[in-house]
Amino acid sequence: MIALAGAALAGAQGHDDAITSLLLALVILLPVAKLSGIFAEKLGQPAVMGELMAGLILGNLGLVGFTGIDFLKTDAGLEILAQLGVILLLFEIGLDASLADLMKVGASSLLVAAIGVIFPFALGWLVSAWLLPGHSSFVHAFVGATLCATSVGITARVLQDIGAIRTQEAKIILGAAVIDDVLGLLILAVVSGMIIGADKGTEISLGSISYLIGTAVFFLAGSLYLGIWLVPHVFHHASKTTARGLLFSLSLTLCFLLSYFSAAIGLAPIVGAFAAGLILESVPMEKYLQTEELSPDKMLHPLSVFLVPLFFVQMGLKIELASLFRIEVLGLAAALTVVAILGKQACGLGAIGKNLNRLSIGIGMIPRGEVGLIFAGIGLTLAVKGERILDEAVFSAILIMVMVTTIVTPPLLQWSFRSRAAHNK
Amino acid sequence: MIALAGAALAGAQGHDDAITSLLLALVILLPVAKLSGIFAEKLGQPAVMGELMAGLILGNLGLVGFTGIDFLKTDAGLEILAQLGVILLLFEIGLDASLADLMKVGASSLLVAAIGVIFPFALGWLVSAWLLPGHSSFVHAFVGATLCATSVGITARVLQDIGAIRTQEAKIILGAAVIDDVLGLLILAVVSGMIIGADKGTEISLGSISYLIGTAVFFLAGSLYLGIWLVPHVFHHASKTTARGLLFSLSLTLCFLLSYFSAAIGLAPIVGAFAAGLILESVPMEKYLQTEELSPDKMLHPLSVFLVPLFFVQMGLKIELASLFRIEVLGLAAALTVVAILGKQACGLGAIGKNLNRLSIGIGMIPRGEVGLIFAGIGLTLAVKGERILDEAVFSAILIMVMVTTIVTPPLLQWSFRSRAAHNK
Repeated sequence: MIALAGAALAGAQGHDDAITSLLLALVILLPVAKLSGIFAEKLGQPAVMGELMAGLILGNLGLVGFTGIDFLKTDAGLEILAQLGVILLLFEIGLDASLADLMKVGASSLLVAAIGVIFPFALGWLVSAWLLPGHSSFVHAFVGATLCATSVGITARVLQDIGAIRTQEAKIILGAAVIDDVLGLLILAVVSGMIIGADKGTEISLGSISYLIGTAVFFLAGSLYLGIWLVPHVFHHASKTTARGLLFSLSLTLCFLLSYFSAAIGLAPIVGAFAAGLILESVPMEKYLQTEELSPDKMLHPLSVFLVPLFFVQMGLKIELASLFRIEVLGLAAALTVVAILGKQACGLGAIGKNLNRLSIGIGMIPRGEVGLIFAGIGLTLAVKGERILDEAVFSAILIMVMVTTIVTPPLLQWSFRSRAAHNK
Repeated sequence: MIALAGAALAGAQGHDDAITSLLLALVILLPVAKLSGIFAEKLGQPAVMGELMAGLILGNLGLVGFTGIDFLKTDAGLEILAQLGVILLLFEIGLDASLADLMKVGASSLLVAAIGVIFPFALGWLVSAWLLPGHSSFVHAFVGATLCATSVGITARVLQDIGAIRTQEAKIILGAAVIDDVLGLLILAVVSGMIIGADKGTEISLGSISYLIGTAVFFLAGSLYLGIWLVPHVFHHASKTTARGLLFSLSLTLCFLLSYFSAAIGLAPIVGAFAAGLILESVPMEKYLQTEELSPDKMLHPLSVFLVPLFFVQMGLKIELASLFRIEVLGLAAALTVVAILGKQACGLGAIGKNLNRLSIGIGMIPRGEVGLIFAGIGLTLAVKGERILDEAVFSAILIMVMVTTIVTPPLLQWSFRSRAAHNK
């Protein structure tokens, strides 16, 4: 009879399976993320390293036979919260940066980004040509392309954790990462356009490439220009309503709006979120706040405390240790990882100015994160005349490269900043 | 050629369709929710009424031929955020209440809840027997059951909006709503257990009913008792780490933990969230905070500012005006709505004490919200010997009852509190 009542209960619960599963995920991950962050800091590491490692351990408990929490890897609600987390992280970092400061290092950022695309692309091509001799040059081009992108989430978070987010180097990296995203989009579009074209016997035109560059640059410059001019007017009018929390709602709306546009034209959503932060940084918020109303950046803080660690724990959850030990892909993976790391080290040379920590700039550009994964995922779907561009083995090797570049960055970056600080004393 | 590049871009975007769609939903709903809340307040209504109405209008633009934003009704990310919103709302309300105060009005709450279950059940049975003469008594029992539950989200939010959340009446309603959820669960289990039993030729036992009551009461009393004893110890130890934000993470974890348990035993997740709030209210938080660290309830505020309105806008989005005008179900719907409202008016009589606003207590118990919908949804899946318990027409009528009880509550509740205040002057 209990079974009958149980069936009725199961029915009653059926309506909110998604939320029930998310609640369980949060119950596990919130304390784990916080405590592992604290533990990492006790060991002298950035908190984000602890979050990544905690995720990695939880995600690989299957190796010791425990699969009870494998739902964490695929929980849709958690995925959504993690994505919002990284968007809010870059929004917060934009709010903390200043467009004027970024412009000052603009030339450096541009050079750093350009070098960080050219070297990895060339090295990736060479490695692919060397280790995959039987494949077409489309494959080599695509492997090269997957090495180009920089995923700024990890670096930005480490810089925040170790209190280096306002340094000259941080500004150069942040600017370069945004430019990199545009360049990465471009290379992806060109390479996959050429591949699709070769498959269909057509060619990619200069026109479509210019169109892509145009859209991305127009979006970034346009939204910054328009935003900085328009947002103070909107906030000025909004402040007349004397309603509390309106400025916070509007700030979040701007963040999500530019993230959405960013995604809609093929850039990473975090690029738009960062731009929204830069726009709001320029707004004299205190002029528009009601008495005792908290400013939007202060209101944002609890949201990011809640959501940001979820992104990094989830990144760790997705690292499959088992795949790291597949012997048949280890050679290619190792070679790709080495050139992925070395290829970005030339970046530091592009930075203009004296007394810069060029090593830190190069290290900050290392992580490929989700951007590399997106590229690889597209590669899986492409083929020329029946030859798949990326097969499972190459895909696995790229995956390993992405994981390793993500995991080595936090300790390396902290070490490079610390040793420089010690050196300067 | 642009199409080719476009295809590559579409591929690049494919990975995060869910987040892109959610971003667009937030861009639309955040400002709409905030501005409609402000507008409602200008008209002397609670903010939540504006949010409901804005959702209702956006969700029914299809009636004037605009279906461009219909994705809002089914966006999975929005659904998740809305659910988190209502959980955090009840958590916040629990933090603002006090268990001792609730216990003082415990007898009142119990009587109010009991009356609020018995009258609607009996009236619902009678209406069903009268208007659906050909159906079995299982149908009448089930229709009666759908009228029992109280959805406390709307009422709690209105009480918060109009500044009445600390009144005696508010405490009685909150306590009664929690008890109602237990009683509702019980009735649902008994009625559907009887129906499933009748279909299979078995009977529901007293044992399984006692088991259900036992589980629910044990969970509520146990978590409150254990929580109030254990949480200060945990917080005391946690405060030794000198890490900031740990208490906030632990507070959220407790909220999600009890919400999860609550859902797992078949209660609404918000019951657990409310209990978590009550537990934390009893913790002397200021003893454990680091210097200049914000207390968990202050950290919670921006989260609820962001998420809570999404729940109510989404509730509005789900109201299909077209279904309200289906002539064949209007008679049953009207009768059910009338008894749903009248049936709860006896509740005020159950409250013990002088000078209570009994009308407000009755009105506060009116909304059926999502709990009524869950019941109706289960009814759709049940059948006895091939006869479905609820057909589409009865289901539609219940839907209309749920919608109307939800919409009429905010203005009625505000009116009853105001007119009483005017009367007392």
